[in-house]
Amino acid sequence: MEDCIFCKIVKGEIPSFKVYEDDRVLAFEDINPISKGHTLIIPKKHAENIWELEEDDLIAVQKASKKLAHAIKKSLNPDGIACLQLNGTAVNQVVMHYHFHLIPRSQGEPELTMTQWELNAGDIDTIKETCDKIADALQ
Amino acid sequence: MEDCIFCKIVKGEIPSFKVYEDDRVLAFEDINPISKGHTLIIPKKHAENIWELEEDDLIAVQKASKKLAHAIKKSLNPDGIACLQLNGTAVNQVVMHYHFHLIPRSQGEPELTMTQWELNAGDIDTIKETCDKIADALQ
Repeated sequence: MEDCIFCKIVKGEIPSFKVYEDDRVLAFEDINPISKGHTLIIPKKHAENIWELEEDDLIAVQKASKKLAHAIKKSLNPDGIACLQLNGTAVNQVVMHYHFHLIPRSQGEPELTMTQWELNAGDIDTIKETCDKIADALQ
Repeated sequence: MEDCIFCKIVKGEIPSFKVYEDDRVLAFEDINPISKGHTLIIPKKHAENIWELEEDDLIAVQKASKKLAHAIKKSLNPDGIACLQLNGTAVNQVVMHYHFHLIPRSQGEPELTMTQWELNAGDIDTIKETCDKIADALQ
C-alpha cells in the first residue's frame, strides 16, 4: 500500500532496525519501545489485520515469533515476554498493517499496558545496540 | 500435567464453555472475561509458554485464532479484537499452560489492560449464550 509506513519499511524506503527477515516476514525493533527489546514482526505483503492476513503469512509470522522469543530470551534475559497483536482502532491499532508485538519485561519494570500507551521515541543508540544483540542471538 | 487446570479442562475433568476443538487445540470462553467474547485457545498437549510450545501446536493455535476471529466478528460484531499471549509471571501469566487470548472490544467499552486485570467472575448465562453464538458462527 502506497501510504503504509510498514510497506515502506519492507521496501527499504524507510530505514529500520531489522533483526530478522525471510521470504514472507520482516522483524524490526519498535522505535517507540514500551520496553527494551520491543520487537515487531510484520508480513511483507500488506494485510490490515488478522481477518485479512493470509494463513501462510500468519504461520510465517508465528514461526518467526518463536525464533525471536528465543533470541530475546538469550540476548536480553527478560523475566517474561508479552505477545500482542491488535486488530482495529477500538483496541488501539495505530499502523493499519498487521503487526505482532513481542514485548519483554523484567520484574520491577513499569507495568505494560495493552490498548493505551504513549508513543515515546526511544534512544536510538540503545535501540541499535538491542537490535544487534537480538540479531546476533538468532545466529 | 497433573495439577494444571487447563490440562484438566482438556481431559474434561473440569467443564468449560467450548467454542472450538480439533486434534491439537481447544478453545473456550474465559470464565473471568475482561470483555464479552473473551476466548482462550490452548494446545491440548501441555506446554508452559512460547519457548516450550512445539511449532506444530503453535501453528494449530494460530490457525484456530483466525477462524475464531472471524466467528467472533460475525457473531458479536466488535469494533476490534486484541490478541494477547503472556509468557512468564513477570507479564502476568497466571495459568502456566500456554494460552492465546482473543479479546473483543467495541468503542466506548472499558479500556483493556495487558498485564494487570482483576479476575472477576463473569455471568455464567451470558458466557454460555456468547459461547453458543461464537460456536454457531464457526459452522
